Amino acid sequence: MNTTFLDACLGKPTPYTPVWLMRQAGRYLPEYRATRATAGSFMGLATNPAFATEVTMQPLDRYPLDAAILFSDILTVPDAMGLGLTFAEGEGPRFAHHVRDEAAVAKLAVPDMEKLRYVFDAVRSIRNSLALRMNKGVPLIGFSGSPWTLACYMVEGKGSDDYRHVKSLMYARPDLMHRILAVNADSVAAYLNAQIDTGAQAVMVFDSWGGVLADGAFQTFSLAYTKRVLAGLKRTDADGNVVPRLVFTKGGGLWLDEMKDLDCDVLGLDWTINLGKARAIVGANKSLQGNIDPNILFAPPAAIQTEVKRVLDSFGKPHADAAKRGTGHIFNLGHGISQFTPPEHVTALVEAVHSHSKKMR
Amino acid sequence: MNTTFLDACLGKPTPYTPVWLMRQAGRYLPEYRATRATAGSFMGLATNPAFATEVTMQPLDRYPLDAAILFSDILTVPDAMGLGLTFAEGEGPRFAHHVRDEAAVAKLAVPDMEKLRYVFDAVRSIRNSLALRMNKGVPLIGFSGSPWTLACYMVEGKGSDDYRHVKSLMYARPDLMHRILAVNADSVAAYLNAQIDTGAQAVMVFDSWGGVLADGAFQTFSLAYTKRVLAGLKRTDADGNVVPRLVFTKGGGLWLDEMKDLDCDVLGLDWTINLGKARAIVGANKSLQGNIDPNILFAPPAAIQTEVKRVLDSFGKPHADAAKRGTGHIFNLGHGISQFTPPEHVTALVEAVHSHSKKMR
Repeated sequence: MNTTFLDACLGKPTPYTPVWLMRQAGRYLPEYRATRATAGSFMGLATNPAFATEVTMQPLDRYPLDAAILFSDILTVPDAMGLGLTFAEGEGPRFAHHVRDEAAVAKLAVPDMEKLRYVFDAVRSIRNSLALRMNKGVPLIGFSGSPWTLACYMVEGKGSDDYRHVKSLMYARPDLMHRILAVNADSVAAYLNAQIDTGAQAVMVFDSWGGVLADGAFQTFSLAYTKRVLAGLKRTDADGNVVPRLVFTKGGGLWLDEMKDLDCDVLGLDWTINLGKARAIVGANKSLQGNIDPNILFAPPAAIQTEVKRVLDSFGKPHADAAKRGTGHIFNLGHGISQFTPPEHVTALVEAVHSHSKKMR
Repeated sequence: MNTTFLDACLGKPTPYTPVWLMRQAGRYLPEYRATRATAGSFMGLATNPAFATEVTMQPLDRYPLDAAILFSDILTVPDAMGLGLTFAEGEGPRFAHHVRDEAAVAKLAVPDMEKLRYVFDAVRSIRNSLALRMNKGVPLIGFSGSPWTLACYMVEGKGSDDYRHVKSLMYARPDLMHRILAVNADSVAAYLNAQIDTGAQAVMVFDSWGGVLADGAFQTFSLAYTKRVLAGLKRTDADGNVVPRLVFTKGGGLWLDEMKDLDCDVLGLDWTINLGKARAIVGANKSLQGNIDPNILFAPPAAIQTEVKRVLDSFGKPHADAAKRGTGHIFNLGHGISQFTPPEHVTALVEAVHSHSKKMR
């Protein structure tokens, strides 16, 4: 197995900078669109382990990526809580029931993990497919939304551009918000542990909406519950391998000084923060994952190469001392890849990351 | 005239912290909705100096705000360039022509300011109305979008959630993007100077979309052109009064260390950054404006009071030495007020700012 991703997570030297892409199995790939058409819908894909495996493997067939990520959605957990998730074509996710009052909050509980068996079955199936690649296999990343990010969808009932309902509840009834977040944190920990049990070799918490919170509220309503998740996670898989933990708060660059104390191995960063500055703040106890703007993938390959170099150079000289932990770097986008991305531009990006990062060593 | 806003801009001590609210003349006020219904449309309001004056004054009649802001829209400038602005009900602004290729860029030029006469007439008319209030009058803030923010709309043709077209152009054809931004910067400077000539007592540059840029791109494509605007601005009005300059980059907290060297008097901040930390970075040469989350206005008055105190306290002890410049504080939202805001909650917010900030002195 290609261990560059896991090594970089744990701050060990690597021969080049590993790279994977958020939403790498997605609509920009014609083969993904074909499988999705067969499955009939997004949830048809996500709930069928064979389809989920197929689309998880697709980008690995095209590109020499250094990690696979489970094909799923962060909203599987509130769906298992009974909120009734649907994806209307072109509209994004929507819940049949939203959680905005005392009665709805009282009903919330950690879901029976049996309801999420399709996810764990997919994890097992993907691991089997990856194992068939022998030494060309890559590790599988499991993931979940953060308690706050799940709460955003649970309260809003769908995506939002102002987070009016969830913030109203948070400011007006912090007691109810804390109750939602506690249930979410315990659910996320159980969910990620089950992914670890069935084969996830690293786990990532997507705090996609942490960055919409005010300073103060972020620490109280997002960071504290990410901590609670991390405190509930297994450290190793059934074989005793360490399972690295990655936490990504989109828009969280201003809070790195607080996030650097999280009990995790890697912090994900979006493109607004300079990697060199982030490395100086975070130090050798954590690695960094990120952070190019996915919109660079609309530019020609020469421009992609220039920007990839700029991002790698901003991180600086890679850690090279095998005797101690250093700040590892995992190259990624600062946000999911756009459905409009030309697939051949991804080839240029991955190639540029590997070749330039080799030269930096 | 109540000079607390202007004094705070220039770092002079004030008896309390002045407050105004972005989009204070807006849809959350029933009297605004009535005037808009009479005018027929948003642009019907903005292009008619009598209506623009009426709605600018409405929030001042309700609340003891410490500044007025010209009722207008940041897209008046590209509209005057001939791009054909319309506001479809419930859809937001849209341009008939977008600027995405060499030919469209070549056609761009600083518009004849005569086309924006309706804005300058509104400035004059609002100043006249404010003058009638005698010692209860407040200063009038003029404004413009930043060159980058205007470019976002000009290239996208409307609002965007991924900025795909404008960033594609920026990464693929930086030469064209620089040309757009140069025209925009010179247009914005001319536009703000004309507002100063007709009565604006402070001017604010809204870099609403600067925060979507990657580190590096922000400095090159947003900050550099905001600098160019500031370099082109008059320092004083016709009567020799200093006209303070305010710059607000939404999502710009990570770049404060660079923005602190802008030739302006005030930096606007959104709610993600702690005001105390920002004050430490920015120092005494600039004042700060911001930064409560407007969603607090959906909570009951007691919660509003608590959060207002928290924000004022995070800024810390107000500057009190009349002999030298200090970091002034102007209280504001970190984003425009929501149309769903209960108007009586604004009363609670303004009252809390004034009363708690008095106690801090």
